[in-house]
Amino acid sequence: MNPDVAWPIWSRERAQRVEGALARALPESTELPQPLHAAMRYSVLGSGKRVRALLAYASGELAGADAAVVDHAAVAVELIHAYSLIHDDLPCMDDDVLRRGKPTCHIAHGEAMALLAGDALQTLAFEVLTKAPLSHPKTPDESQIAILATASGSRGMAGGQALDLAHVGEALSLNELERMHALKTGALIHAAVRLGAACGRTLDQAQAGALDRYAAAVGLAFQVVDDVLDVEGTAESLGKTAGKDAMQGKPTYVTLLGLGRAKERVAELRDEAHTSLLGFGAGARRLKELADWIALRKN
Amino acid sequence: MNPDVAWPIWSRERAQRVEGALARALPESTELPQPLHAAMRYSVLGSGKRVRALLAYASGELAGADAAVVDHAAVAVELIHAYSLIHDDLPCMDDDVLRRGKPTCHIAHGEAMALLAGDALQTLAFEVLTKAPLSHPKTPDESQIAILATASGSRGMAGGQALDLAHVGEALSLNELERMHALKTGALIHAAVRLGAACGRTLDQAQAGALDRYAAAVGLAFQVVDDVLDVEGTAESLGKTAGKDAMQGKPTYVTLLGLGRAKERVAELRDEAHTSLLGFGAGARRLKELADWIALRKN
Repeated sequence: MNPDVAWPIWSRERAQRVEGALARALPESTELPQPLHAAMRYSVLGSGKRVRALLAYASGELAGADAAVVDHAAVAVELIHAYSLIHDDLPCMDDDVLRRGKPTCHIAHGEAMALLAGDALQTLAFEVLTKAPLSHPKTPDESQIAILATASGSRGMAGGQALDLAHVGEALSLNELERMHALKTGALIHAAVRLGAACGRTLDQAQAGALDRYAAAVGLAFQVVDDVLDVEGTAESLGKTAGKDAMQGKPTYVTLLGLGRAKERVAELRDEAHTSLLGFGAGARRLKELADWIALRKN
Repeated sequence: MNPDVAWPIWSRERAQRVEGALARALPESTELPQPLHAAMRYSVLGSGKRVRALLAYASGELAGADAAVVDHAAVAVELIHAYSLIHDDLPCMDDDVLRRGKPTCHIAHGEAMALLAGDALQTLAFEVLTKAPLSHPKTPDESQIAILATASGSRGMAGGQALDLAHVGEALSLNELERMHALKTGALIHAAVRLGAACGRTLDQAQAGALDRYAAAVGLAFQVVDDVLDVEGTAESLGKTAGKDAMQGKPTYVTLLGLGRAKERVAELRDEAHTSLLGFGAGARRLKELADWIALRKN
């Protein structure tokens, strides 16, 4: 995936694992209505970094969860992510034509089908979680579905997109920018970490807090790197249009901090992620590897 | 609501009840991000026939459920319905400007915010159900969330909308038309009935089957009446654009059967709904009243 950073065999194996689970969770494109199922599979399968799924598997490992139990959570977060990309790329939103190295869903399948594909992928994410076996009982508020819904809705990802829209062309403070990104990308990344951990043994409060700090750090790092890559990357390396933020007058970490300071911020966040995991020992190995990869990635 | 048909006090009381529950479930429009929460509230509150909520309360009564338990289900189906209307009205879908007697969401709040409002309403529907107390334990597959997700996704409502899109301008057999409507409107109406009943005592297989037949009959009746009203109604009486199906070359029960036969079909379906409830006695009173209202409604 990224020649500059060692991509551990574990990650590659888990990325393949979630790919298979996604292919099984999605209705076949021969099933009625075929155009809808084809659009759904087009946007989910065969590409994507699967960062959210990997985070779910990694925090599942930390909590001693069976990967087969984590599969449902991994699939659900990838489906929510895929739905958000389809809708984000629509003409009334970012109006983008390139995603994950191929034409966006509405370019390939038409705008109406892309809208419905995003809608149905969101639904499928929740449906998949209703089939998830949990290793221990939870109260309703702690249910995986509640975690995913809170992270995805108007107080999470969708809310972040609304803030992003509202802020185009506006001067933004660093605090406001961080709040927007904490919702837009941070909430779902956080949910991935929490959902994976929820598949294993119950963590004590200190451990849950440490994992929350880890999730906040990698979630933010992911977004700062995105902003850096939007300036430094090419469409070929990114698989999506480069330089879009500047073109659209969107405030970013790079416009607010400058390129050098933005890169320093990534290094700080990577350190924070590692520090938060200190109490966990060897079980946190995969989470540490992912923090490194998120900070050092080139696409 | 409809001067031609007695609208029982019970229905009015329940419609007010779900209105209050919806107002509490939706984030305040003063809460960040305000434009998103305003768009969500705009499209959900203050209008709508609440047929799906009423069906949930009525089947809840049949199963002896407490209305306070049914509230969650009633809110969830109304949120899914509202999200589907917002997205259905978007320019890339039906491109409509009038809904429930006021400008559609994208006309009032812009296309991007309407898209996000629909997205976030779907999420909220599932979130609300995670807070629903159930009167008896269910296996995961019978969970309220699974029922709602199956009815809403690509094998339910969203799938029906995709079929509808695919069929514009096409000659359709009656069977194909019924299959499309069974998904597009029937699935969610069916879910409303099942969700309400799931809040009460467990029904035996024969009772569950009878309730399924009732739901199928009123779901189809609702759609045939819609097609009749699209021909006979006015924008003022309907609160939405009249004559749209003909304008868009959409196959309807009226174009396939003729107006007279379509009306006969409604009467047959109303009889079917009543017949299916014969074994239930007085507990089915509200479901019967709703079948009458659905068949005789003028808006």
